[in-house]
Amino acid sequence: MGSARGFSELRKAVAEANRALARSGLVLMSFGNASAVDRASGVFAIKPSGLACESTTLDDVVVVSLADGETVEGERRPSSDTPTHRVLYNTFPTVGGIVHTHSALATAWAQAGRPIPCFGTTHADHFRGEVPVTRPLSVEEIGGDYEHNTGLVIAGYFEDNQLDPLATPGALVASHGPFVWGEDATSAVRNAEAVELIAGLAMDTLALSPDQRPIADALIERHFSRKHGPDAYYGQR
Amino acid sequence: MGSARGFSELRKAVAEANRALARSGLVLMSFGNASAVDRASGVFAIKPSGLACESTTLDDVVVVSLADGETVEGERRPSSDTPTHRVLYNTFPTVGGIVHTHSALATAWAQAGRPIPCFGTTHADHFRGEVPVTRPLSVEEIGGDYEHNTGLVIAGYFEDNQLDPLATPGALVASHGPFVWGEDATSAVRNAEAVELIAGLAMDTLALSPDQRPIADALIERHFSRKHGPDAYYGQR
Amino acid sequence: MGSARGFSELRKAVAEANRALARSGLVLMSFGNASAVDRASGVFAIKPSGLACESTTLDDVVVVSLADGETVEGERRPSSDTPTHRVLYNTFPTVGGIVHTHSALATAWAQAGRPIPCFGTTHADHFRGEVPVTRPLSVEEIGGDYEHNTGLVIAGYFEDNQLDPLATPGALVASHGPFVWGEDATSAVRNAEAVELIAGLAMDTLALSPDQRPIADALIERHFSRKHGPDAYYGQR
Amino acid sequence: MGSARGFSELRKAVAEANRALARSGLVLMSFGNASAVDRASGVFAIKPSGLACESTTLDDVVVVSLADGETVEGERRPSSDTPTHRVLYNTFPTVGGIVHTHSALATAWAQAGRPIPCFGTTHADHFRGEVPVTRPLSVEEIGGDYEHNTGLVIAGYFEDNQLDPLATPGALVASHGPFVWGEDATSAVRNAEAVELIAGLAMDTLALSPDQRPIADALIERHFSRKHGPDAYYGQR
Repeated sequence: MGSARGFSELRKAVAEANRALARSGLVLMSFGNASAVDRASGVFAIKPSGLACESTTLDDVVVVSLADGETVEGERRPSSDTPTHRVLYNTFPTVGGIVHTHSALATAWAQAGRPIPCFGTTHADHFRGEVPVTRPLSVEEIGGDYEHNTGLVIAGYFEDNQLDPLATPGALVASHGPFVWGEDATSAVRNAEAVELIAGLAMDTLALSPDQRPIADALIERHFSRKHGPDAYYGQR
Repeated sequence: MGSARGFSELRKAVAEANRALARSGLVLMSFGNASAVDRASGVFAIKPSGLACESTTLDDVVVVSLADGETVEGERRPSSDTPTHRVLYNTFPTVGGIVHTHSALATAWAQAGRPIPCFGTTHADHFRGEVPVTRPLSVEEIGGDYEHNTGLVIAGYFEDNQLDPLATPGALVASHGPFVWGEDATSAVRNAEAVELIAGLAMDTLALSPDQRPIADALIERHFSRKHGPDAYYGQR
Repeated sequence: MGSARGFSELRKAVAEANRALARSGLVLMSFGNASAVDRASGVFAIKPSGLACESTTLDDVVVVSLADGETVEGERRPSSDTPTHRVLYNTFPTVGGIVHTHSALATAWAQAGRPIPCFGTTHADHFRGEVPVTRPLSVEEIGGDYEHNTGLVIAGYFEDNQLDPLATPGALVASHGPFVWGEDATSAVRNAEAVELIAGLAMDTLALSPDQRPIADALIERHFSRKHGPDAYYGQR
Repeated sequence: MGSARGFSELRKAVAEANRALARSGLVLMSFGNASAVDRASGVFAIKPSGLACESTTLDDVVVVSLADGETVEGERRPSSDTPTHRVLYNTFPTVGGIVHTHSALATAWAQAGRPIPCFGTTHADHFRGEVPVTRPLSVEEIGGDYEHNTGLVIAGYFEDNQLDPLATPGALVASHGPFVWGEDATSAVRNAEAVELIAGLAMDTLALSPDQRPIADALIERHFSRKHGPDAYYGQR
């Protein structure tokens, strides 16, 4: 797989996505990583474990096999969350990039075990409905292949609820934090920013109106389709 | 309309207002746009769609006809919110500039569907009474000419309540966010900052005193007239 | 009064205090001003009206008479809050500098009409007890010499409650915001920072423990006297 | 004790830790200090009293005897919290560095008199269970050797509850704020950052789910041991 010069383009994109993630302010302490997939080659590239996002370079990035999770290229140990990313790429064939953070407000919703209701158009511009929260992992899942099981719990939620991963580009893992994705690493970073923004908006909305209901489906559809799909009319042509 | 050299002065002012909006911190992700009107020429100028406020230049700005909404000058596609701005300029003849943002705290009030009560002098310095919130748009209004209808819902509120748009220089669109205006684009940006500030003050006021009542009309009048109108005595003469 | 070269030292100190206030982040929009008194000369110096704190220079600062509030030196119009400062200097002979802001969290307490209880040592290091809130001004007081009456309402509170203005170096004016002072303008700025900090701490304390009681008098005395008075043992000798 | 050239290495490390603490944003106004111990020499080094963390240099740092609290090296007066640090070093033989701040969110929990429950993996990565809060000091303890007694109250809590100070690397002193430690001054600063982060996450978690319960012990163990102890698998080998 890969050309003679290996995966330097993919690794460069992932290094840049990790640095963009650092600039976004979503990475608190060292909690954060971004990855991107090359489906033709059957690999994805991810930040190494324990390194700061803001200083991640091409040479730091590790390339991992989608098939078995083994390192294909790179000298470092991949992020401890690598097995979660691998499950998500293998489950969601349309996803091109994944971001994990412990961004403060989204993590509070994850810790509260509550999905983020769609209370407004800022939300509907990015998610066609609520930001889901997973069930807690069982003691067995925690004690076993923990990070792999984290991916399975997200994947199971999407299967059970028949969700399109590009219309619901992320989920909150209960007691943990957000995993967010997109068509590529750049849109995954942008969606991670959106999750943090709408987490804060929704928290304050409930403080003001504790019984507030989600917005009408028609408004969700209008805003989501304004920016996504064949009828999009936002941005320059 | 316009001089031989076109609307470069108007476009320059709007480019600067969009950059000022970016500096204000009110523009989260790319949610934000500023416009200004030239009533003698029957046009207004606005940010293009999907471009970052902070990098908007004169050449990016689009000039649009007040009469029919068609582009009069500029190469780009105007903001998707252009029809909302057009309705507001056509309804409020004293308004010279309009700003739309999804600034976090004002948007939370919009999502909560609550007007911001006038709890103090910071508020009364800018709004002679509450910051209103519109009714939600109907499914028909959402499915039709959505952005145009957003403007009509704001305009309808001001008509029904006989409000002076310069004494109430903005409104929260339910489930969406603030549209704020002023005598020109500069004062619209300043009023958008004021709305965000007083949204936060009011939220914290209610957290401390959930049943707090608005301040006395006499105090509202004193502060509003200290800065506005013939008896203003704030600032340098 | 004043030397041949006038009050340039006093004006310089006040210009610097206003710039320090801007750097502190307490001045939202243009709500803020700092002043200092020269009791031997019977004057105080204050920021001009409507100018930004961060760009205040010696030449901008206005010198005003304690006796009658008339301008003694300086070209500009003094802050609209000048009559409030004058009443406070005339009432509190130990006060050397005064700061007024609409800093967000202290203003929320003022708008809520609640004093800030002393919930911890951060508070007790600066205030020997609660940060008081005044009664609302009456319609007559608002309609009359409003800013002068604002000063009288603060002064009346301190007289009624027999408070030492250096042990309680500030008050929240109901529905308005904090007026804070100190032995000089520098300590007034520092105390204004302290008020904002303890306003936030107390707000969050009540969110966690809505019925929390103030700390013991012994702890208040210990901390206040650690930093103030003859037995102070904080800082370098 | 110490080499001929004295404790310059220890003092340098402590100066750097105080500057790192300033950069972390945890030091509000001047509330904060960091120290480190040299057990072979029976001393610890600490910031001087009343000086800003961000400008602390090697020459400012004071070296104090673990045995009697007397200054061994350095010209300045040590932090007023020095007796608290000394008790903690003498009680916890595995601790190498200590940090005290009044960081806003952790201090709010301290003022509320509530321990921070372990609501998620961000927390469990740093504390194997809740962040404890001490009992209030008695009037006698406040009136006596106050800072020494503050250390004793923390130490007593750990003894009563049989806690390992490296698995619970900090505590909230009731009505005061956090004291946090680690294997060295660098990890103490990092743990102080973690305490502030998880204080905010937990506050928002309770706002969303007021009756939320702590996470399962299995998840706490998994995350704590992922980063600490013989089975750690986080970071580069």
